[in-house]
Parts: sequence; structure tokens; C-alpha cells
Amino acid sequence: MTDDALVIFTPSGKRGRFPHGTPILTAARQLGVDLDSVCGGRGICSKCQISPGYGEFSKHGVTVHADALTEWNAVEERYKSKRGMLDGRRLGCQAKVMGDVVIDVPPESQVHKQVIRKSATMRDMVMDPATRLLYVEVAEPDMHEPSGDFERLAQALEAQWQVKGVRADLAILRRLQTTLRKGEWSVTVALHKGNHDEAPRILDIWPGFHEGHLYGLAIDLGSTTIAAHLCDLSDGKVLASSGLMNPQIRFGEDLMSRVSYAMMNPGGDVEMTRSVREAINALAASIAAEAGVEATAIYEAVFVCNPVMHHLLLGIDPVELGQAPFALAHSASLSLDARDLDLTNLNRAARVYVLPCIAGHVGADCAAVALSEEPGKSKDMVLIVDVGTNAELLLGNETRVLACSSPTGPAFEGAQISSGQRAAPGAIERVEIDPATKEPRFKVIGSDLWSTDPGFVAATATSGITGICGSGIIEAVAEMRLAGLVDPGGLVGSAEQTGTARMIQEGRVHGYLLHDGSAEGGPRILVTQGDIRAIQLAKSALYAGARLLMDEMGIDNVDRVTLAGAFGAHISPKHAMVLGMIPDAPLDHVTSAGNAAGTGARIALCSVAARNQIEETVHHIHKVETAIEPRFQEHFVNANAIPHATDPFPNLLSIVTLPDVSFNTSGSGGTGGRRRRG
Amino acid sequence: MTDDALVIFTPSGKRGRFPHGTPILTAARQLGVDLDSVCGGRGICSKCQISPGYGEFSKHGVTVHADALTEWNAVEERYKSKRGMLDGRRLGCQAKVMGDVVIDVPPESQVHKQVIRKSATMRDMVMDPATRLLYVEVAEPDMHEPSGDFERLAQALEAQWQVKGVRADLAILRRLQTTLRKGEWSVTVALHKGNHDEAPRILDIWPGFHEGHLYGLAIDLGSTTIAAHLCDLSDGKVLASSGLMNPQIRFGEDLMSRVSYAMMNPGGDVEMTRSVREAINALAASIAAEAGVEATAIYEAVFVCNPVMHHLLLGIDPVELGQAPFALAHSASLSLDARDLDLTNLNRAARVYVLPCIAGHVGADCAAVALSEEPGKSKDMVLIVDVGTNAELLLGNETRVLACSSPTGPAFEGAQISSGQRAAPGAIERVEIDPATKEPRFKVIGSDLWSTDPGFVAATATSGITGICGSGIIEAVAEMRLAGLVDPGGLVGSAEQTGTARMIQEGRVHGYLLHDGSAEGGPRILVTQGDIRAIQLAKSALYAGARLLMDEMGIDNVDRVTLAGAFGAHISPKHAMVLGMIPDAPLDHVTSAGNAAGTGARIALCSVAARNQIEETVHHIHKVETAIEPRFQEHFVNANAIPHATDPFPNLLSIVTLPDVSFNTSGSGGTGGRRRRG
Repeated sequence: MTDDALVIFTPSGKRGRFPHGTPILTAARQLGVDLDSVCGGRGICSKCQISPGYGEFSKHGVTVHADALTEWNAVEERYKSKRGMLDGRRLGCQAKVMGDVVIDVPPESQVHKQVIRKSATMRDMVMDPATRLLYVEVAEPDMHEPSGDFERLAQALEAQWQVKGVRADLAILRRLQTTLRKGEWSVTVALHKGNHDEAPRILDIWPGFHEGHLYGLAIDLGSTTIAAHLCDLSDGKVLASSGLMNPQIRFGEDLMSRVSYAMMNPGGDVEMTRSVREAINALAASIAAEAGVEATAIYEAVFVCNPVMHHLLLGIDPVELGQAPFALAHSASLSLDARDLDLTNLNRAARVYVLPCIAGHVGADCAAVALSEEPGKSKDMVLIVDVGTNAELLLGNETRVLACSSPTGPAFEGAQISSGQRAAPGAIERVEIDPATKEPRFKVIGSDLWSTDPGFVAATATSGITGICGSGIIEAVAEMRLAGLVDPGGLVGSAEQTGTARMIQEGRVHGYLLHDGSAEGGPRILVTQGDIRAIQLAKSALYAGARLLMDEMGIDNVDRVTLAGAFGAHISPKHAMVLGMIPDAPLDHVTSAGNAAGTGARIALCSVAARNQIEETVHHIHKVETAIEPRFQEHFVNANAIPHATDPFPNLLSIVTLPDVSFNTSGSGGTGGRRRRG
Repeated sequence: MTDDALVIFTPSGKRGRFPHGTPILTAARQLGVDLDSVCGGRGICSKCQISPGYGEFSKHGVTVHADALTEWNAVEERYKSKRGMLDGRRLGCQAKVMGDVVIDVPPESQVHKQVIRKSATMRDMVMDPATRLLYVEVAEPDMHEPSGDFERLAQALEAQWQVKGVRADLAILRRLQTTLRKGEWSVTVALHKGNHDEAPRILDIWPGFHEGHLYGLAIDLGSTTIAAHLCDLSDGKVLASSGLMNPQIRFGEDLMSRVSYAMMNPGGDVEMTRSVREAINALAASIAAEAGVEATAIYEAVFVCNPVMHHLLLGIDPVELGQAPFALAHSASLSLDARDLDLTNLNRAARVYVLPCIAGHVGADCAAVALSEEPGKSKDMVLIVDVGTNAELLLGNETRVLACSSPTGPAFEGAQISSGQRAAPGAIERVEIDPATKEPRFKVIGSDLWSTDPGFVAATATSGITGICGSGIIEAVAEMRLAGLVDPGGLVGSAEQTGTARMIQEGRVHGYLLHDGSAEGGPRILVTQGDIRAIQLAKSALYAGARLLMDEMGIDNVDRVTLAGAFGAHISPKHAMVLGMIPDAPLDHVTSAGNAAGTGARIALCSVAARNQIEETVHHIHKVETAIEPRFQEHFVNANAIPHATDPFPNLLSIVTLPDVSFNTSGSGGTGGRRRRG
């Protein structure tokens, strides 16, 4: 036995014996316990706060006495009085071992802290940020040992932080000498540890101890919408989330029309690249302003996007993605300087990470969904549907994962819909139609009230009722089907066929008047026959993709369905099933994962381990190409109808009744007609 | 025994047995024999030419029969008829082993070919270029194995050239898909193998087989002169050499005045950085034009320079170099993109390598001299003096090497001299003065004739006689000393003291009329008392630096002296000794190495192994700081006089007679006066 004291760390359970007088931080480092420190134990940063436990720990077989640590000292007192510190906490660099002790490392003192899921859109993850602040004390120059200031900084980083072979670009070298001298030979660096074989790199440098935060942007670059989260790189906290329309919409609403634009217009790809980069710069500025931070404090950005957006972001002509064999220019992940992408609103040295693509039609956004939802770790057979202008689908379990993409078009995002709009205050997002009276009620974004509730008018006075968004149109069409206003073929009934004056004739077809605000100068919001057709096309594509994956997997049923996408969280599972967007499944097994691609981007932003994981995972995802698969067309055509009562949807039919109607114009009208799907 | 044939390669001596039908190139690769190939054995590039030997090789114990190789084939015939090929040569990829054979690999077929010293300024070196052309055949995209075009290119480079983990920047990715398709899935890449832990990187890409040359610039960036060699990166051949004045001269003639300019003028360092980069761009364009190549075919540039120029090139404020402890911002070698230095006239992807600095006053130029002259491999104690506005000195042998720099000022480069000019046609570069008649004769750059030779006037008619360059002023002053026109203290005698009317009175001092062109409208070229003083200061600094190193080494004599520098090749050893520029040494042991720094730059340009070598070597060179060493001042003061007969210079006095004169103004004039140095 030695005279050394036993130190046990929780929650890791790591333990070891240390001489009296060893700082807790030193003990933690020697044992490989994850205890944060920016200043390296100099009592400056207070990141190494720990909670010593006292008394009997029968589990660990030790008794901790009151004098197991050195006394509370002046450094701790100064920090506590100036900044506050929870009672019972000590600074790991100040408290020294004097006897056996049990030390709890609270989550906020861990570099690799676990971020607990707080909502459906937040996945548990372990922090492993690429960029961290490190404080170092650098040796002064010595004429007799003439090394450069940078070389001495690199030596200090290696000795004090075990960071080997660090690099810095010329912009850092230019500021190095004044910064070192201003900080009297101590500096704080923002160090990017590098992906894979990249050398670690100094992104920024400050004199002395710098108490700032480093931020990152997780960007889901969709065909229609660009969504971003601004995160704190130390704890993964989302400070602000924001989005804007992808300005490339003016070059084409869906991906293939943008590829066509690039093909038909010399320089068209360059134009689209410029416009999306400008939008990202604007988004970076606005999201930083919203969070009240400087955009120059953004040191990392992670992008997820489909292959066409991926190429257009990188400045690569997407023409090859428009024709078989849909060859990507670059499929692996990419680590770039933000300035390579002209993202000049971020910090000048900011790094960009782009997730890997899976295939020519299955992009980094799908990889991000796989990272977020981890189908390859599921015991159930799960179908993940990331709804967007281009939908990504993943089907699999721990044995095998398949992926495909499906060109749904922008209807689900409210585009190509007569009264459609993007999800914003004033947009109808929820719809119910009384099957008896055929009267609707709805909710608009910005208010929790139904349109029939008292106070609704006042609650929506500011935004007005401006249109209908993606989730709203899905519910409206499904509710029309449930109320017998639309037949399985998608035909809208007339007023006389349905018995409600809300059916408005438009030429030879009909529409359903959801809301008439014209008296107050607002819009009339009608669900038109054209809207139904657009939704039918979109949902058929989605369903056909799912069926194709199921064929490939050799299954007829899935255990679970996860709806994802920027607005996936807002789709009602029941309505999605009524519409036939997704395969039949028990309703309580159909869940929403919110913006899973965005979540995947956020996970990759906060964790280098996660980047490594998804880079490995994509090699094991088998991609099914919809564009050249004849069965896709077949499934697509077959899926055009909206389910009716005799279709094989046992789970669906257990929860709803599908009216048996047919409105084909040559028919007699009214109920009773039947059409079989062919 | 096997049926395999024995293949012996010369000059390497490597041997092995191979099945009949094995191409010679394949055999060479398996044995690690250095046999070049750009096309990888596809009969396209013809780089793998070899010379089979036939008959009895008793040394190797084999007899080579006429049918030892497969017959001359159509590929070889086509190449020979189109491009020509020496008789007896075969293409290594076409000729296959059919019996025991001895294969000679001629130097031009070796990647690591030895470049033999052709002149004093050309050192033997082994080629090991960082950037090479490689031809690859890339797999076509396959929808069922969806990898990116870049990933398949990377796989091809690994499979066909053992290049792992290759990278390319976005500019290459942008061109990749069209290039691959244009080349029908074969391309040639310019591949930079990376320094140290850098990943190999594609600098350029062409469809199919590209038969171009890759060029590099070796740049000696001096305080006064910027000199460059344009080299072919495959064989090290110098296609053109050119130089221009460093435009920073307008900010200060010597290094310390430029540091002062940066200190006194906010933004002054930025201004100096811009001016030198612009000059380098101009030089790159002009040297490429001179060689008849495109400047965009320049893929690498190597820089050697003193620490102040190093910092100003990199855009780092040199202020710290102006004061003790003379801390460099960065002392190690640097690998950069040329565009980081705004060197936009080179290829857009060109790489820059900057040699390491040794210390705050001993720069990458000194490292380059060490690389070129290799004092650390010398058995003799050698003093290497790199003469320039700032002189670098190296003293040592295989046991120990010391270095220092000495601020000689620009006098040796013709600046600060009344009729001084840089070395260019029309400049007086050689001077002799008859000790009896005191009459001079001289040579000017551009003609081999002495001024007293018939035809001299005609030969110099174009350039005229415009001034005197560095080597000319050194010879002039030394010859004046030998002719008794200058005394050991540096005083110039009057006409009556010296007995020649060439002595011209100027105020209270005198000058020597070397040439009077005023009758033809040309200049009067006078060596003034001021010129003598400037040369005395410069040579004292040089000598004091050498003495300081000798003190540190504990020696009084050196075995050899090597004069280097942009104009070091032009300095007459005898005159340098008469002047007291260098320590006394046997005259035949004083040699010129030409522009050793420039040679070192060229070696580093052509060889990654040499870069690694000098990076290691600089750590073993011990630097002596002149600026704070009191003994340097002491030596400097003591060295001010020009040697006279009683000084301890046995080697010097064995070859010349030093007139015993004194011209101090209060003296009697004429010969006979004596002054002892204190």
C-alpha cells in the first residue's frame, strides 16, 4: 500500500491513486477523465468545476473525509464572488487531493458532454466539437535558441494540450507577434482539430485568456428552403434557428429544372451558385443578429443538401446529375475554408464541413437523416421519409439499410398550390372538415386557436389568413377525402354531388372553399381540383419510392414510419396515411422526427466522431435508383389514387372510414359509384 | 532453378527473376528500379526508354542473347518514326523479358536522375520533384456503385500510382467531370506529392495524355536584387535566369532601414509586401517569356531570402526583427499556395515552398547556402561568405557549423558608390592598375577585352561605359592599395603624393580617375574617398563576422574560403584578400560558389529530399548573433584598415607586395610614412 490517496471519478467510474497535493484536474487528465479546461489549470477559465462527495461511499468502498481536498482558496473565492458558482462546487485545478475522495464531474464540465433530447427535434448526442478554445503560455524568444514565435506556440500547444503539428495560415501569422506580446506570452487560440489526416489548425488567436464563445452553423440547404441553426460549439445549444427561401427558385422550382437551367444557359450554374452563396451569407448575418452574436464568431458551418444543391453550393456544374448514370463530381465528405465558398460573413478562417453524398440522387441530406435517425441501429424495420421538393427515403434495420430519393416536387412545401405559401404566420396549417356538415375549421400558424374558437379573429388579426402551407394542404385534401368531397380517383365533387355550397365550380371542375376573407380584403382560400392533382403527383412519387425500397427489401409491411423534413414535424400521420403518402402502418408507429436532416447537420457540427460515423455509414447504405427503375413508374401510376375502403390498408381502415364516393363527370353524381384501382 | 529469366538493371545493380513475357517496366517497378513513366506503361509517354545490353557480361555472370527481349513492336516503331529514339533504345513498357538480360536505365529515363555539375554555379543533385505528371485511366461511373468521379480518380491514382489520399481543391473539382469525359475516362494530372504530412494534391488536370512540361521558379529574394531561375521540374534544367532590382529599395536600401520604414509608417509593411510581390509577378512573367513558356505552366516556386525579406514576402510586419531578441514570426519552412502570396502570374494552383530560417538574422538564404555548399559535410574547416547587402557567413566542418549574418550594406552591390551601378552591360567589373605607371585598365560587362586592347571601343560601343559594379569597385580599391594610391588607413593620396595626374582633388580629399568618358558624352568614373570609406565599412562588417565565427569556433585560420552571392562568382579572391574582406587563406583555397543561395533554391525546387535535408540541417547550425556581440564591434573597428605589409597575413603577403604608404593629411606626403593599426 502507498500513502497516495484514492481518487474516484463519477460518472465515469475511473479511479487511481495520486500523491497528496495532486490537483483534481491533473488526476483527471492522467486517468483520461473528461474534465474540461480552457486555461490548462491556471485558475482562469473555471471550466473544470467538480463536485466532491463526502461521507460513506459503500459502492466504491471508500469514506471521504471533510479534509479530503485542500481548503477552498482565494482563486476559487474570487471566481465565485465575481461570476457565481454552485455551492459544493470546487475548481478542479485548485482543489488538491489530501485523502481518498469521490469526485463527480457535472455534465457542463465535460468536453464530451451528452446533450439530452429535449424535444422531438433534438437528439441525444455527445459533444465532440472540432473547434475549441485553448489557453497556452508560450516561451519567450531567446536569442541563443532562435526559434520562431510560431514554433514556440506550437511547442506550447503540444506540451500543454498534446496538440501535434499545428498549422496556421498567413493571416494568423501576421497577427501572431503582436498578439503574443500583448498577452505577455499567453494567448488563447481557437483550434480546429482537423478531419481525418488534416493537421490541427489555429483559426483565431487572442492575447491572454479569451472568454468568448465559438459558434457554428448547421445548414440544411434544401431546394426550396434554406434552414439554419446557430449553435454554441461548446455545448451544442441552439441559440437561434432561421430559414429563408432558396433564391435559386427563380431558376427552377425543382432540381431537374435547375439542372436544365444550367444546361440551357451558359454560366447558369455560376449564377445559381452565386445566388445561393449570397443567401447563405445573408442568413448567417441575420441568424447571428437574431442570437445577438457577431457573425465573425462563427467558426464552423456544416452543410447537408441534396446532390444538385451540393454541386451548386460548391460551384460545380450539376449537368451530370441530370442524366444517367447520375455521376457525382465528388461523393465523399468535404472540408473546406468558408472563403472557398465566398461565405465571407462568417469568421475569415471559418471551416466548412459538407456531409458525404450517398449517390447521384441521394445526397448529403439523406446522409444527415441517417445520422440523425440511425436506421442501421434499429431492430424494427423502419421507413424514414424526409419530405421535401426532393424526398429522401431510407428503409432498413440493423441488418441492411436502403435509400432512394423521389422527385415529389414542391407541392408539399406549398408551392404549385393555388393558395399555397411557405409555412409562416398567417398560413393555414391544420384543417378539419365535419363529415356531416362538410364545414371546415382550421388553425393558422401563429395561433393555437381553431378558426371556430372565440377570439380566433383577434388572435390572427396581425398576420391575417394569407394562404395554406404544406401540412395544411395535406390535411385539407385528406379531410376532403374523409368528408366524401373527393373521390378515390381525386375528383372533387360538385355542390350537388356533395350537398354543400362550399363546392365552387371552376370551369368544368370544382374546388372547396376553405376560407373566404374577401369581405375583409383577404384572400379566398380554395382547394382546387388542380391542387388535388398536384398533391396526388407528389404523394404518388413519395409512396412509389417507399414501395420500391420495400420491394428491394422483399417486404410488404414496415414496422415503423418516421416522417421527417423541414415541415415533416407538422404533418399529421393520420392525414398522411389517408392521403396514401406513406405505406399502411399502425398509427402509433408513425412518428415525426422533425427536420431530421437539419438535426443531422447539427450533430455533425457538434461532433467530429459523428462525422467519422456518417462517413463510414454511407458506405453501408445501399442506394436504389428511382429514375431508371421501371417499377418506380409502375408504383407511381398505381399510387395515384387516394385510398378507398376496399384497398388493403388494415391499419388505416381501423381508424377511419373512407366514404365510398365517385365523382367522375360522366357518372350520375352523388354517392354509390365505385371505381377499382387498376 | 526456375524457368524465369534473370533481369539485371544498371547502374543500380538491382536484379531479379521474372516470368517470360514480363515487361521491363514491370520488372523495374517490382525491383524498385527508378524507371520513369508518365503513362503507366501504356506506350504513350515514352519516358521509360531503356538500353538493353547484349553479349557476355562477365561482371554480372550472364550472357545476353539477341532474343532476350520480345521483338521491336509497332508501338515502338510509331514512336521512333514520329519523335525519334536513339538506336538501341527500347520502350520499357513494350519490350518483354524472354531470357536473361542486362538493362541500362539512361539518366533521362530516371525520375531521380542525377544532374551533373556543368559549371561552378551548378551543383550535382538528384531529382526528386514534388510535382509530376501522371496519366491515369479512371473507372466509368456505375449507377449501382455510386461513387463520385473524384473518388474514382483517387482510386485510380492509388491503384496505378500508389498515391494515397489525394486531394483537389474546388477549382479542380469544377473541371473534373468535363475533363474526364473529354478524355474518355483517362486524364493526366499534375500531382504535388506534398511536404511532410500534407496530403498529395492535384494541381492540374488534362483530358487524356498530356505531353506538357511542368516548370518551377527558384527565387533568391535579396534586399537589393531578386534573382530567379526557371527550371524544368522533370530534369532540373535551367531554361532561363533573370533578375531585377528589389523595388523595396525605395523604402530603404538596407534591411534595417526597411524595418524602420515599417515602424515609422503605418501600413508601410503592407506597402513593401505589395511592391515585392508585384515585382515577383513581373519577374515570373518576364522569365517565362524569355524561356518561351507560359507562366501558367509554373507549378512551384521556392523562395530563399533573409529574415526581413522573408517576413515582408509573407506579409508579416518585420518590426520584431529590428530589435533584440530578433524574434522571427515563423522559423520553419513554409508550404503555401502561390495565391496566398498574390503570385497570380503563376499557375492558379501553384505551390510555394519557403526554406526555413536559422535565426532572426540568419535567414532562409543562409539555409540555402548551407544546402548548396554543405559545410557540414566538409572535412576541412570552411568559411562560406555569401556577399550581399546583408552577408551570410557559415563556418564549419562535419563536426560543427556556425552561422551569422553581417550588415555589409549595399556598397558591394554597387550602391552607395559614386559611380556605382548594378552588374549590367556597360559596368566596369575588372580593374588593374599598373604599380609603376599608376595607369588603369579595365573590363566592362558584355566584353572580354581589356580597355587597353585593340577593338575595345568598338566592342563596348553599344553598352557604353556607364559605371562600376560591385566586383569592379572591390578590384579598383584593392588595385589602388597595391599601386600605393591608398594607404592602409584608407586615405587616397594626392597627385603629388602618388606622382600621377589621375588623382583628382575633391574638396579636401582625393579620388582616382578610372575612366573619363566626358569627351564622348559619357561619365567620368572616379573612385572617390567616399567610395573607399563605403567599401571599408562593408568589408569590415564582413571580416568582423568571419572573425566572430572563428572566435566562437576557437580557431585563427580557416582551411578554405568560399565566396558566394549573386555576384560572389565575380569577386577576385586575390582582391578580396588584399582588401581584407576575408581572412587570410591560401589563395588557391579561396574559391567562388557563384550564387550559392540561388543554387540552394534550385536544389530545393527540384528535390523534396533536399527540402527534408535542409529542414533537418538548420537545427544543427549554431547561430551567432552579431548585433549584440561586443566582440563584433571590436572586430569591426579593428578591421577598418586595409592590410599593410606588417599585418599577419602570411598567405596574402606571399603573393602580393603591399606598398608602405601613408597619406594622412598632416603628414609630409609621399612614401615612407608608417602607421600601425591600434
